[in-house]
Amino acid sequence: MTEQAFDIASLHAAYSAGWTPEAMIDTALARLAAADDPGIFIHLASRETLTVEAAKLGAFDPVAKPLWGIPFAVKDNIDVAGMPTTAACPDYAYTPKKDATVVALLKAAGAIVIGKTNLDQFATGLVGVRSPYPIPRNAIDPALVPGGSSSGSAVATARGIVSFALGTDTAGSGRIPAGLNNIVGLKPSVGALSTTGVIPACRTLDCVSVFALTVDDAWRVFDVAAKPDETDAYSRAFAPASYGATPPVLTIGVPAPADRQFFGDMLMREAYEEALANLSAIGHRLVEIPFGDFYSVANLLYEGAWVAERYAAVKDFFDAHEESFHPVTRKIYGGAKTLSAADAFNGFYQLQAYKRKLQPVIASVDLFCVPTAPTHYTRAALEAEPIRENSRLGTYTNFVNLIDMCGIAVPTGTRGDGLPASVTLLAPAGKDGLTASLAADLHAKTGLTLGATGWPQPERASAAPSSLSEELIELVVVGAHLSGMPLNGELKNLGAEFSRATQTARSYELYALAGTKPPKPGLVRSLGSDCSMIDVEVWQLTPDAFGRFVAAIPAPLGIGTIELADGTTAKGFLVEPVALAGSENITAHGGWRAYMRSLAA
Amino acid sequence: MTEQAFDIASLHAAYSAGWTPEAMIDTALARLAAADDPGIFIHLASRETLTVEAAKLGAFDPVAKPLWGIPFAVKDNIDVAGMPTTAACPDYAYTPKKDATVVALLKAAGAIVIGKTNLDQFATGLVGVRSPYPIPRNAIDPALVPGGSSSGSAVATARGIVSFALGTDTAGSGRIPAGLNNIVGLKPSVGALSTTGVIPACRTLDCVSVFALTVDDAWRVFDVAAKPDETDAYSRAFAPASYGATPPVLTIGVPAPADRQFFGDMLMREAYEEALANLSAIGHRLVEIPFGDFYSVANLLYEGAWVAERYAAVKDFFDAHEESFHPVTRKIYGGAKTLSAADAFNGFYQLQAYKRKLQPVIASVDLFCVPTAPTHYTRAALEAEPIRENSRLGTYTNFVNLIDMCGIAVPTGTRGDGLPASVTLLAPAGKDGLTASLAADLHAKTGLTLGATGWPQPERASAAPSSLSEELIELVVVGAHLSGMPLNGELKNLGAEFSRATQTARSYELYALAGTKPPKPGLVRSLGSDCSMIDVEVWQLTPDAFGRFVAAIPAPLGIGTIELADGTTAKGFLVEPVALAGSENITAHGGWRAYMRSLAA
Repeated sequence: MTEQAFDIASLHAAYSAGWTPEAMIDTALARLAAADDPGIFIHLASRETLTVEAAKLGAFDPVAKPLWGIPFAVKDNIDVAGMPTTAACPDYAYTPKKDATVVALLKAAGAIVIGKTNLDQFATGLVGVRSPYPIPRNAIDPALVPGGSSSGSAVATARGIVSFALGTDTAGSGRIPAGLNNIVGLKPSVGALSTTGVIPACRTLDCVSVFALTVDDAWRVFDVAAKPDETDAYSRAFAPASYGATPPVLTIGVPAPADRQFFGDMLMREAYEEALANLSAIGHRLVEIPFGDFYSVANLLYEGAWVAERYAAVKDFFDAHEESFHPVTRKIYGGAKTLSAADAFNGFYQLQAYKRKLQPVIASVDLFCVPTAPTHYTRAALEAEPIRENSRLGTYTNFVNLIDMCGIAVPTGTRGDGLPASVTLLAPAGKDGLTASLAADLHAKTGLTLGATGWPQPERASAAPSSLSEELIELVVVGAHLSGMPLNGELKNLGAEFSRATQTARSYELYALAGTKPPKPGLVRSLGSDCSMIDVEVWQLTPDAFGRFVAAIPAPLGIGTIELADGTTAKGFLVEPVALAGSENITAHGGWRAYMRSLAA
Repeated sequence: MTEQAFDIASLHAAYSAGWTPEAMIDTALARLAAADDPGIFIHLASRETLTVEAAKLGAFDPVAKPLWGIPFAVKDNIDVAGMPTTAACPDYAYTPKKDATVVALLKAAGAIVIGKTNLDQFATGLVGVRSPYPIPRNAIDPALVPGGSSSGSAVATARGIVSFALGTDTAGSGRIPAGLNNIVGLKPSVGALSTTGVIPACRTLDCVSVFALTVDDAWRVFDVAAKPDETDAYSRAFAPASYGATPPVLTIGVPAPADRQFFGDMLMREAYEEALANLSAIGHRLVEIPFGDFYSVANLLYEGAWVAERYAAVKDFFDAHEESFHPVTRKIYGGAKTLSAADAFNGFYQLQAYKRKLQPVIASVDLFCVPTAPTHYTRAALEAEPIRENSRLGTYTNFVNLIDMCGIAVPTGTRGDGLPASVTLLAPAGKDGLTASLAADLHAKTGLTLGATGWPQPERASAAPSSLSEELIELVVVGAHLSGMPLNGELKNLGAEFSRATQTARSYELYALAGTKPPKPGLVRSLGSDCSMIDVEVWQLTPDAFGRFVAAIPAPLGIGTIELADGTTAKGFLVEPVALAGSENITAHGGWRAYMRSLAA
């Protein structure tokens, strides 16, 4: 069995060097066999099916197919055409004809489904042991629970059997198993990934989530899968997220020390404090936040309305086949049968009140950093207290979807006892790129190996031009706004940042405008024979700052499109031709700074 | 008894000329006595109380107190400190110590509460006859139902006993009684007015609404009352709305003829068609829209989840005192007791699916114009079919709050039989200013007298530049961004609001730019002899939106400073002179719209 690492960068490098998807399939299946864990997959694709899928890929082309030849696993509450969907309830099983929307998107990008993974039945639980199938073993320590509900997906990823896996996350099912298995768990903003073809837990809260060995990989998958879907009424279109460049100083909310809960696990507490120290060390600012209201929101999830939402999702089946359910799941769902519509509304009112109360708290920071799970539980401990310990695992996860935040669980270290530590970064919906960027910084700083594989972290993908800077508008300045010139302060007061000094294309004339104070030039595009390249500076502003700046520009100056020497264009100062009468043509000086120097000389 | 008109402009003019609040009180009470209708008020302030309130006002100051000395009535499900709140259920009555937030805001602005008005019990009904108190008489024809649930508020306003009245609106209670009594009913965006101190019907849908004799008055009240309230978890802060200037060409959705429902009332159908003809006549564009999905949404309101929300609001009282309810109300609420939490969630899912389906339909127009009520019912007809006729009255109102739209009911004419006709203008939440502006145009065009008073419409308030608009940046558009032109949507997508149509100063030339698609003009300031005034429109944008807009303008167009005909300046489109080569000088047409018409001719 080859030791070929399955993170996407390593796998694509291997393909590029001649390795084959057939070899990848052999490796994946050999690793699964070596794991000797019949609990990971509920359904496995046959070698023949996988070979056929691989053959369809065509030549290696990671541009057209960014997930070309990448093996992945799918939690068994998400449809894959032709494979049974069980939700870990065999009597519920059906075989869908269509892929879930996210699965179809990933397949179209070249990814290959290895199989369907085990879960806490109907995705209800954070432990991974509420399944009639064999229980997947925690990839780091088999005495521990694997975490759930996306247990098999997390373990398959942590063992390097697949490059990534899809989970779902309503209360933490995409984060807890990541935290317990030393991998990354990206829990997107509610609605960012379609839930069409996914068995609902709570339809108003469910997210499809991504497990991966690295944050880069989780982001690659998110980038392919996060597409608005008109077949999902809860699908949302977010502004394009940018990933890779983290602002240098973020304000990060952390639970006030008195509100941190580890249930006696001192090693987890130390690990969390170490992660916070790492965030400080890379330049960020920590702010302690009282967490009582977040915990109150968390309690709503299993106390009323939203349990009824789980029941509503499978009502007909539950009413007819209650005995088909796992005993713990059956107890939870059964408790919802007597809840009234009035109870549901009262739950919404309570949530809405907390949302309103937490709004300014959430707005006071850029993001939050919380422990992923407060502790590890052995399978024995869990059997002794199946409900209480499950509930404790959700301390830092249950409130998140209810208050519409996105999150990402990321490994932060190895505790003294060899078990993994993890934090989850949380931010308001739509900030998936920000949380992922910081998670990547933090993961890199730890130098941890990946999952249970021992593979080193690959080099990080070069930060694509930051999403944050994509939002900025470039402004070409020519005269009094140049660095050190009299009006440059106007730019700085608006928070503008200097980008570069450059020149215009060779098609402009520059004039010293008559009667301006401070003296100003006028730039005008020209077809004349004496046009030239003109020295300019490019500054970057937010749309708001740019809007204010443009609104304040007096006649005869205005803002148009300037062609730069490198053939690109940007917005910049132009002058109305009517103002050129009586103005001196100073094109020959090549720029305002040179002209002003000539006057001083 | 004086004939002093009680619309706010007339009343303030009278105060300014020396009339007194004491005289106003005498007049209001005399009018109430003359109406001889014991059903209007459930509780009336004493003359002594009113006199004390009036004495507190100080000198007439309509700037500091925009509602100085203005009498108003409050629906009896809204708290006024010291007056009993009954919701038309005497056994439920309590006397609050605090004003509802909206009442407190209106009092602080100088308005005086005359009393608490009758309603369909617990605001459930659109008829006005579901009350144990005497039924208020329709102000136009006593044989007709007054409409509800805000029956007393509408009748008090229509009779000129008060200048305006507060209602509530969940399913149409702020619109139907306006339509049936020849007055204006402004139903704000959900959350724009606080519901703190209001007995809930459906907390997630309830709006406090405003009845007034004119649209100007309704807007004045809205402007005072629409303030975010942190004590109301459903309160929302909307971008500042501007009122008074309607874009010259709006696209208005109307139910396709096959989907118009008048239940045999041909006069109402004719009146509606006449209103649509008036909208066309003032320059707007009507688009027929299939209305089946809107009606399906309407059906949700009384079929499941949201009836349970009404029950949830008074559950303890209902369970203990079912016999205290009006028989019809009791039947409706009682039906909700057996609804389960799962039923509630299924209702939300259905609504969400319709919302998603209707999203592009709603986005395809600027606003909608529907009949307010499909017909008038006599009290006798209503007694014969109390549920069916109530439901029919809500044909064009029930869906509105569920899909988060704002609306305003406005009189449009007098039918052949002397009964009032009315339409309701609807738009997505936050567009209260747009619907009100168009409603004012339409009301002015009818020349109708006010309510049942015979008073003429006062001169319209000059559109005050909103104080909030100081943050906005004005943009002068010349060509493809004009209302109704191909690129106008770019402005609307950025949330831009139309300010006014005007002309440039007499110093511009206009060119039809060669090779642009869609065709675009270029405006250039000129010293030449053939320069002229050019037709333009001014739109307002936030700095952020303005920044984005400017950043997206392609060469050779840019943004400079435009001098307008009135001598003011604003930012607007200019063209680089280099682009004028080969372009036709179309200055003589006076504007792009005229030029395009000349091409079509």
